[in-house]
Amino acid sequence: MRTSQTDVVVVGAGLAGLAAARALTAAGRSVVVVEARDRVGGRLMGHELGAGGTVEVGGQWVGPRQVRVNAWIDELGLERVETHDEGDNRFEHRGRLSRYRGPIPKVNPLVLADVAQAQAWLDRMAARVPLDAPWRAPKADAWDGQTFETAIRRIARTTAGREFFRLMAQAVFAAEPRELSLLHALFYLRSGGGFEQLVSVAGGAQQHRIVGGAHRIAERAAETLGDRILLGAPVRRIDTDGNTVTVRGDGVEARAGHVIVALPPTLAGRIIYDPLLPGRRDQLTQRMPQGSVIKCMAVYDEPFWRRDGLSGQATGTTGPVKVVFDNTPSTGGVGVLLGFLEGDHARTLGAASPDERRRAVVDCFVRFFGPRAADPLEFVERSWAEEEFTRGCYSAFMPPGVMTSLGPELRRPCGRIHWAGTETAEVYCGYMDGAISSGERAAAEVLAARTD
Amino acid sequence: MRTSQTDVVVVGAGLAGLAAARALTAAGRSVVVVEARDRVGGRLMGHELGAGGTVEVGGQWVGPRQVRVNAWIDELGLERVETHDEGDNRFEHRGRLSRYRGPIPKVNPLVLADVAQAQAWLDRMAARVPLDAPWRAPKADAWDGQTFETAIRRIARTTAGREFFRLMAQAVFAAEPRELSLLHALFYLRSGGGFEQLVSVAGGAQQHRIVGGAHRIAERAAETLGDRILLGAPVRRIDTDGNTVTVRGDGVEARAGHVIVALPPTLAGRIIYDPLLPGRRDQLTQRMPQGSVIKCMAVYDEPFWRRDGLSGQATGTTGPVKVVFDNTPSTGGVGVLLGFLEGDHARTLGAASPDERRRAVVDCFVRFFGPRAADPLEFVERSWAEEEFTRGCYSAFMPPGVMTSLGPELRRPCGRIHWAGTETAEVYCGYMDGAISSGERAAAEVLAARTD
Repeated sequence: MRTSQTDVVVVGAGLAGLAAARALTAAGRSVVVVEARDRVGGRLMGHELGAGGTVEVGGQWVGPRQVRVNAWIDELGLERVETHDEGDNRFEHRGRLSRYRGPIPKVNPLVLADVAQAQAWLDRMAARVPLDAPWRAPKADAWDGQTFETAIRRIARTTAGREFFRLMAQAVFAAEPRELSLLHALFYLRSGGGFEQLVSVAGGAQQHRIVGGAHRIAERAAETLGDRILLGAPVRRIDTDGNTVTVRGDGVEARAGHVIVALPPTLAGRIIYDPLLPGRRDQLTQRMPQGSVIKCMAVYDEPFWRRDGLSGQATGTTGPVKVVFDNTPSTGGVGVLLGFLEGDHARTLGAASPDERRRAVVDCFVRFFGPRAADPLEFVERSWAEEEFTRGCYSAFMPPGVMTSLGPELRRPCGRIHWAGTETAEVYCGYMDGAISSGERAAAEVLAARTD
Repeated sequence: MRTSQTDVVVVGAGLAGLAAARALTAAGRSVVVVEARDRVGGRLMGHELGAGGTVEVGGQWVGPRQVRVNAWIDELGLERVETHDEGDNRFEHRGRLSRYRGPIPKVNPLVLADVAQAQAWLDRMAARVPLDAPWRAPKADAWDGQTFETAIRRIARTTAGREFFRLMAQAVFAAEPRELSLLHALFYLRSGGGFEQLVSVAGGAQQHRIVGGAHRIAERAAETLGDRILLGAPVRRIDTDGNTVTVRGDGVEARAGHVIVALPPTLAGRIIYDPLLPGRRDQLTQRMPQGSVIKCMAVYDEPFWRRDGLSGQATGTTGPVKVVFDNTPSTGGVGVLLGFLEGDHARTLGAASPDERRRAVVDCFVRFFGPRAADPLEFVERSWAEEEFTRGCYSAFMPPGVMTSLGPELRRPCGRIHWAGTETAEVYCGYMDGAISSGERAAAEVLAARTD
């Protein structure tokens, strides 16, 4: 049994927990971070390819406007590299394949106009959602009373335009638009800097990768915390008695004045709390499910598509893989195509055999990039719903009705228990950047509470 | 440490768990039921009034068409009594109070016609939802892609008509219509025998009470199981190793060939499973929240409203109490008004002080029944979201998108782990009757598995 007594216990050594611990340490507080896995990083995770080089099976991209994560990258001595973005992109709609350059596929001008007006509507409405209190948006009740799917059917008039927004929802939320509250979707759009930012490579949230893999951000940050991190200790219960909080995990008992729980809401809700958490908090965690995504990569001896003038980026409405990127490591030596199974496709193929899944994904790569894609050297996949200590990616979302009735519980501390995690972020909610700022916000809460 | 070795372990001694255990025992299997609380009954719970007599702070009504629960009531030697249903009902809309007799308030004929046509639409669509597979309904995708609120705005044309359906959703689901999938709502309507059945006293789901309280159904059923029930042992983990399942709770270790988990989905999802449950099952339990209801009763020296020719039943659109019943025990001696805080009102007033909540509820009783309601002898309340081993009532619901993507996981066994609970019932889902049939269905699964 490892025991500790510190000012603060942090639960979870993902970016949010690490950020909280670093902020508290910098302010002179003693901290221990209790982590379920035998590694840090949470939803950031590297994979060494058989042919050499590293790819990420978890989060990987950062955008130029993501202030906090970029500050960390610089401070921790890591290097950014541009996401491969040269050549023509592939676009497939109902089996018809085309290639295009720039951000917009060559489609019917009527569809383009339809998408443009709907996108403008979304951005305009998103601009009216206060990031610190989305439930105070002028039409919060109406927007939270409908699914994003209902909104898509109203604001987009063409079939192809609607399919574009469905694809966008799947790519951004790893959920189907019918699962999402329109209000939550608008909040998330604004939190991520608007529609264009969220879906773009150049200038957007997919612009940069990290040399060696994005998980190195967590690993380097963890190094600055030294032996303050206890691995392999899933937290099972949190007891508050007077001024003391006791966090009990497998083989660990950590006492402190405050605890910061830096987990996705659905996992925070599975811990046993004594005293019990208020019903409102518990009901919130019942209502914030994780998205559904399987990240798949096929490894080839070279990025052969580049010689055909193709970027390796592809978008298709048929699926099961609807979004593809060239994910070749900056160290070269191989070629890697990255495809996402998202929403329903993640759930359906998640129940299939690994062979069926591989075949379904590779078939998509062949459709986009030709027969050379048929025989990868290696196939890498990670289904985040199967991960005991995540249970879904990219992040949690809110179904209709949750934000307006229970939204304020997301960040409200329960006594000496504070809540972090990218789901609690106002800016870049769902991203690494939001994870870091959420940890720093929770640390600031604890620091403020201690001076009372 | 209490240890056991039986054919089957049942987790949870609510009606579903008791039904499973009784069916298995009747078939000659050895069973142990592991229950978190120090009582049986789950969402059924009695309260002894200070002035004498018993009321239920949990489920209480049964309807004449609920075959399984009525069979139990007869078999267990309990007596039904009619819900008090004589006199005029009260109706309040936007502060205007009226009284009426029979099922329909005196409102504008335009509103009546609007409600009638919308109700007919709902019943017609509900009739097309297959109870064993709602995701196969002809328009499943469209119905699961929208909230019940979106449907209400479309099918009801008058403001008052829409408010009526919102009130109905709150009363039936203890949730706001904006939280509910239309497909789930239609399934639930059909499961409960149609709109009229669900909301009616005479001939409907509120027709009968049980002398001594509905919790006696669970208590009598438990007596037939003798010492097979282990109380005070919250189950924390379930491990499957070859042909053996080990259920570990606080102070209990129970081994068996199969386990039936008879808990609401959100609580089933908090148990630790080894091997891990599939991602699809886990993601389902992330997506089935419990409703929000506080059951409140004011006790008077007599049912004074009866002398004014009033039934004690009231409906109002203003709230916070929107639905009221005369809940005087059949043993008499006092008068009891029962009011429900549901959906948003349960969440808002759930965070208020007990005094504020009492005042808000009693004010509603005064509005409906006059100043004599102002000073109850006793005020009884139970907020089910605050109950550690329920975390919300009446039952779980599905937000949009859940039924069509993960619905089949609700009853699908995971190896030797089977799922019961009223949420898994096809008929009278959400009711006592559904709880019993769900336990019997899970028991039948286990019996069938053993003969393989």
